[in-house]
Amino acid sequence: MSGTLTSIGEFGLIDQIRRLIEKEGTCPPGVRLGIGDDAASFQGRAGYEILVTCDCIVEGRHYLPEHISAFDLGRRTMTLNISDIGAMGGRPLYALVSLGLKGGTEVSYIKDLYRGFLYELSPMGGAIIGGNLTKAVGASFIDITLIGEVEEGRATRRSAAQAGDAILVTGYPGESAAGLSLLLQKEPFEGLYDHPLVRRYTTPTHRAREGRAISLSGFATAMIDTSDGFSGDLGHICEGSCLGAELYEDKLPISEALKEAARKLKRDPVEMVLGESDDYELIITCLPENSERIRSIAAKASGVPIHEVGKMIVPTDGMRIRKTGGTLIPIEGRGWDHFMQKEE
Amino acid sequence: MSGTLTSIGEFGLIDQIRRLIEKEGTCPPGVRLGIGDDAASFQGRAGYEILVTCDCIVEGRHYLPEHISAFDLGRRTMTLNISDIGAMGGRPLYALVSLGLKGGTEVSYIKDLYRGFLYELSPMGGAIIGGNLTKAVGASFIDITLIGEVEEGRATRRSAAQAGDAILVTGYPGESAAGLSLLLQKEPFEGLYDHPLVRRYTTPTHRAREGRAISLSGFATAMIDTSDGFSGDLGHICEGSCLGAELYEDKLPISEALKEAARKLKRDPVEMVLGESDDYELIITCLPENSERIRSIAAKASGVPIHEVGKMIVPTDGMRIRKTGGTLIPIEGRGWDHFMQKEE
Repeated sequence: MSGTLTSIGEFGLIDQIRRLIEKEGTCPPGVRLGIGDDAASFQGRAGYEILVTCDCIVEGRHYLPEHISAFDLGRRTMTLNISDIGAMGGRPLYALVSLGLKGGTEVSYIKDLYRGFLYELSPMGGAIIGGNLTKAVGASFIDITLIGEVEEGRATRRSAAQAGDAILVTGYPGESAAGLSLLLQKEPFEGLYDHPLVRRYTTPTHRAREGRAISLSGFATAMIDTSDGFSGDLGHICEGSCLGAELYEDKLPISEALKEAARKLKRDPVEMVLGESDDYELIITCLPENSERIRSIAAKASGVPIHEVGKMIVPTDGMRIRKTGGTLIPIEGRGWDHFMQKEE
Repeated sequence: MSGTLTSIGEFGLIDQIRRLIEKEGTCPPGVRLGIGDDAASFQGRAGYEILVTCDCIVEGRHYLPEHISAFDLGRRTMTLNISDIGAMGGRPLYALVSLGLKGGTEVSYIKDLYRGFLYELSPMGGAIIGGNLTKAVGASFIDITLIGEVEEGRATRRSAAQAGDAILVTGYPGESAAGLSLLLQKEPFEGLYDHPLVRRYTTPTHRAREGRAISLSGFATAMIDTSDGFSGDLGHICEGSCLGAELYEDKLPISEALKEAARKLKRDPVEMVLGESDDYELIITCLPENSERIRSIAAKASGVPIHEVGKMIVPTDGMRIRKTGGTLIPIEGRGWDHFMQKEE
């Protein structure tokens, strides 16, 4: 079935989306009422609390339609919401998708978007149970509310780190931002869209399985995902836990791909690891003696590497990096702030 | 505290909003974790299912900032979400507010918006527990996800009406659209913003208390709110229940104010009652012998008038109106469809 939104209308589209979800999605236990009434409904489970998060991306601000397919855009938007549930130690279950779309949008584009949502959500056991469609003015946007569950009292917060705790991080933060920089270079090279760093930007990986395994182990004192960049989100742990943090430069995970991109882009790779980047890795704090246990739990969950990169310190010392030679340099921990960026 | 979003930034604004909500909002039971982590969390109650809805409004499309204050805009956006929970027979509990804002927006404007949200949500026992802030491109938007609860198995759907059921409607549908038309007239008159119909547009009333009382009584077979207009939402009941509907022209609730506006605007008042309008009244179907009971339940809940205006009929007869003289005229039941409107 082809056509645009203007030709099939809101209710025609809702029908098609509902059919696509019924055919291609999964149905998690607990759903009482899915798409098609004033509200959806589900049954909570005894012994669990319910987690809820929402994240919105705007065309031209968080994504560039000319550089990402509808399917990858759907994956990416769902991934960043799954990441938030995973960073609390939860399991994603029910999504509401609110779209602001331009009238001329192709129905096939919207279906690919939903296939991207389902590609990430279905393997986690989650389903789309509702949402909203509206006509956008100016830029399109995708706003997802994701509901999950976690065993009662077991949500891992950002606010319970202790001074002396080890700081761990999954994967290789900064790769997504490096991919974006490559994408925005004036002279694109052949195979650009298949470059591993560009793929880290277009289809980042959430760490929800790892987050859940770590949280259930009880060894993490705090956990957060790196949606505001490594130093930005480490800053949120510091602020929430009323502490400072010290990172060791020589322990930071810098991939070969990132080093090469840094040379190409004439940037400092350490800054790229710490700065804003849409990676959705996890920062975890724990007692130093539990660091190895957490690394082995994550390895069992998915094989993702976890590096111990620093320690939590007293708040008066702020956030700083210990350079290879021993010098201490303060680092900025405020993270990506859209509103404080200069207007284009 | 004054300033714009560009000057205080996303994290500065989140701090201020959190403080405003803590100071001026209420805290419903069950909240485990509010604003400030990767996700919020709450505890579901045994014997209840959880309802969830989301609705988004876009500047220039669903609201005209030059005609509505931030406080009223906040009230209106929360009202339309509360209406959805109420139309299922539920009680609103937890809201997530996702805002797309322009960088130059005044912080005081945003605070007034939140005061409007709370003005509607707090008396119902609900609270804002999370959300998202992002920079909008082109037009601002407000997207609210509202979570509520209803006794297990007691949600009133749109899909269970029976042929022969009476059709009831609360209040005076169409008044909101009439108010909007007055607002958009070329020559505004004195006291325009205080005109009762204009107030129906800027600050419509939800019927969540009535909806809940009606639902709990067990006498309603189907219920829906009129967010897509009277005939649009009656059409949704017909479609969901695989039925037709007959309305009696002489029983339609047409207020004196609407009649007067219709004269002024040179429009047919019946068309105004049936057409698209942001009223958030309720359409209820029930066995004819329970009609009086439902009217008395609503009267006890709030005193809102409920009119019996027609009956559900076999699907082959479609949707029609019985004119005062007895003639049957088919009516269009598709409701307000943004995507099928002509581009301005």
